[in-house]
Amino acid sequence: MRSHPTSLDLVADDLKLVEAKMRATGEVFRPLSGAINVLLGAGGKRVRPALALLASKLYPNAERDKVVSLAAAIEMLHSATLVHDDVIDGSMLRRGNPTLNASWSQGATILAGDFIFARAAVFASETDNVRVMRVFSQTLMTICEGELRQLFDLRNWQQPKDAYYERIYGKTAALFATATEAAAVLGSAPEPEITALRDYGYNVGMAFQIMDDVLDFVGIAQTVGKPVGNDLRQGTVTLPVFHYLQSHPEAAQVLQATGNGHASADALTQLIADIGRSPAIEATRQEAVQFIETAKACLSSWPDSPYRQALIEVADFVVARTL
Amino acid sequence: MRSHPTSLDLVADDLKLVEAKMRATGEVFRPLSGAINVLLGAGGKRVRPALALLASKLYPNAERDKVVSLAAAIEMLHSATLVHDDVIDGSMLRRGNPTLNASWSQGATILAGDFIFARAAVFASETDNVRVMRVFSQTLMTICEGELRQLFDLRNWQQPKDAYYERIYGKTAALFATATEAAAVLGSAPEPEITALRDYGYNVGMAFQIMDDVLDFVGIAQTVGKPVGNDLRQGTVTLPVFHYLQSHPEAAQVLQATGNGHASADALTQLIADIGRSPAIEATRQEAVQFIETAKACLSSWPDSPYRQALIEVADFVVARTL
Repeated sequence: MRSHPTSLDLVADDLKLVEAKMRATGEVFRPLSGAINVLLGAGGKRVRPALALLASKLYPNAERDKVVSLAAAIEMLHSATLVHDDVIDGSMLRRGNPTLNASWSQGATILAGDFIFARAAVFASETDNVRVMRVFSQTLMTICEGELRQLFDLRNWQQPKDAYYERIYGKTAALFATATEAAAVLGSAPEPEITALRDYGYNVGMAFQIMDDVLDFVGIAQTVGKPVGNDLRQGTVTLPVFHYLQSHPEAAQVLQATGNGHASADALTQLIADIGRSPAIEATRQEAVQFIETAKACLSSWPDSPYRQALIEVADFVVARTL
Repeated sequence: MRSHPTSLDLVADDLKLVEAKMRATGEVFRPLSGAINVLLGAGGKRVRPALALLASKLYPNAERDKVVSLAAAIEMLHSATLVHDDVIDGSMLRRGNPTLNASWSQGATILAGDFIFARAAVFASETDNVRVMRVFSQTLMTICEGELRQLFDLRNWQQPKDAYYERIYGKTAALFATATEAAAVLGSAPEPEITALRDYGYNVGMAFQIMDDVLDFVGIAQTVGKPVGNDLRQGTVTLPVFHYLQSHPEAAQVLQATGNGHASADALTQLIADIGRSPAIEATRQEAVQFIETAKACLSSWPDSPYRQALIEVADFVVARTL
C-alpha cells in the first residue's frame, strides 16, 4: 500500500511550496533551524494541508499564495502541538525519529513549541483574511481544550463515551474542519458550501483520529513508531476500549487496578492484546467508516471533478490506512 | 508611593472591561476558571493594556470594544508567557503568590499556557483588523525568540552588551511597542503617528525591563516576590552586571566559577550585594532614564491633552517605580 493516495499528486506542487514555507522558519531564527528540520523531517502525512489545498481547488478564484499560507499555518499549528505533547508525555521518539525533546532541554523545547505556534499565527495572518484568522485562533483554543480534557480524563475508567468524541473533536477534528472551512472562505465560497466543507473536514478528522486509536492496538510497533497499546498504558481511554468494555465489563477491574498500581504490567499487556484481537476493533473501525460516509455525503452538492474525486479518495484512504 | 500613577484613572473604566474580559476566560472552559483567577489574581500592574487604552484615546474614532479587545489580547499574551516562564524556571511563587505551576502538573500547566495564548489570539481577532492581527502574531514570535535567546545565553558571561538589548526587546519592549502601535492602527492614525506611538511603546518597554533588572538587585525581596539577585543566580546576565564588570573585570572569574559549580553560594551572594551597592546601579538606571526621555520625545508632535499628559506620566512612573 502506498503511503499516500495518488489523488494528492494534484496538489503536489502546492505541497512543495507549503513545505518550503515551513522549513524557511529555521532561517527566521537560526538557532531553531536544526530543530525545525528534525521536527518537519519526521515527515508526517501532511494530510491537513493537502485537504486545505484540495478544497481550495474547488474555487478557481482562491489566491494560491493565500491558500499556501493557510495550509502552512495548519500544519505548523499541528507541529507545535506535537512538540508540546512530546514534552508532556516525555516522549523521546515520534514515528521512530528522535523528538526535539530528546535532544533539547525541556525549557527550550517548550519555547520552541511556542515559537512554532507563533509562526503558525504569522502564516495565518498572511492570508490577510479576518475570518480565517478568527477561525484559526478559535481552533487553537479548541485544540488546547481538547488536550487539557485528555489530561484531566486520564485513568478515568468510568467516563461516558461522549467524552471521547468531544476530546477527539478538540484534539484532531477541529483542525481538519478548519483546514477545509478556511480554504472555502479564501475561495469566497457561498455560506452553505463553507459549512459543507467544514463538515467534510470534521468528519474526516473524526475518522482519522478513530483510526489512529485503532492502529494504537493493531498497528505494528515499528511502523507506528511507538509501542502497541501506548494510549492505554498512558491512561487514555479510546474508542476500542469503550467497545471492549461493553462485552467484557470485567476488564474494568484490570484497568482500575492499573491506576492503583495493583495490576502487573503483564496484566495490562494481556488486556491490550485481548482488545487488539477482539471484535471491538472492527466495531470501532465501522464507526470510522460511518464518519467517512458522512464526509463524502457532504460533497454531494458539487458536480464531479478531479478535485472533488480527490477529496473522496483522501476520505477513503483515511479508513484504509495502516500507518 | 502609589502603586500606579493617577493618570491611569483616565482609563480606569476601560481597564475594568479588560479585566472582566480576561476573567471570562474561565467560563469558556470551566476546569481552567480556578487557574485563570490564580493567574490574574496575582494582579500585576496592567501597564501594557493601560498604554494601549491611553494611546487609543488620542483617537476619538477608535472603537471602544475593539480597543478593549486589543488591550485584553496584549495582557493575556503577557500572562501566557508568565505561565510558561514559571514552568521553565520551576518557579512556585510570583509576586508572593503561588504560581499555577505550584498546584498543577507540569503538563497541565504547559497546556494551560497554550490555552491562554490561544485566548489572546482570539481577543486579537476580535479587533477585526488584519493589520493588528499581523503585528500581534509577529510579536508573539519575537517574544518567543527573546525568551529562547535568554535561555541560550544563560551563563554566557562573555556575551556582548548588544545581546542584552536584543533580548529585552524580544522579552518586553516588543509587546509594549505593539500595544501602542496597534492602538494607533485601531484609531486609523496616519502612518507617522503609528510609528511615533510604536517608538514611544518600544522605549517605555526597554526602560521598564531595565528597571526590572535594576530592582532585581536593589528591590526588597518581599515586595518583588523573589530573592534578590534572582536573575544572576539563574545565569541571566542583565545590564547592571555589564556595568559592574566594566569597572570590576575580576568579577568575571567569580561568575565563571559559578557556572562550573566552583564558586560557593556565598561568593555569588556577596557579588550580588556588591553590584547592588555599586555605581553600576545608577549607571543602569540612567540608561532607563534615557529611554524614557526618548519615549517622551516621541509624543512631541501631539498637542497637549490629558491623554498625552497621562502617557508622559506613565513613562516617568516607569523609572520612578520601586516595584
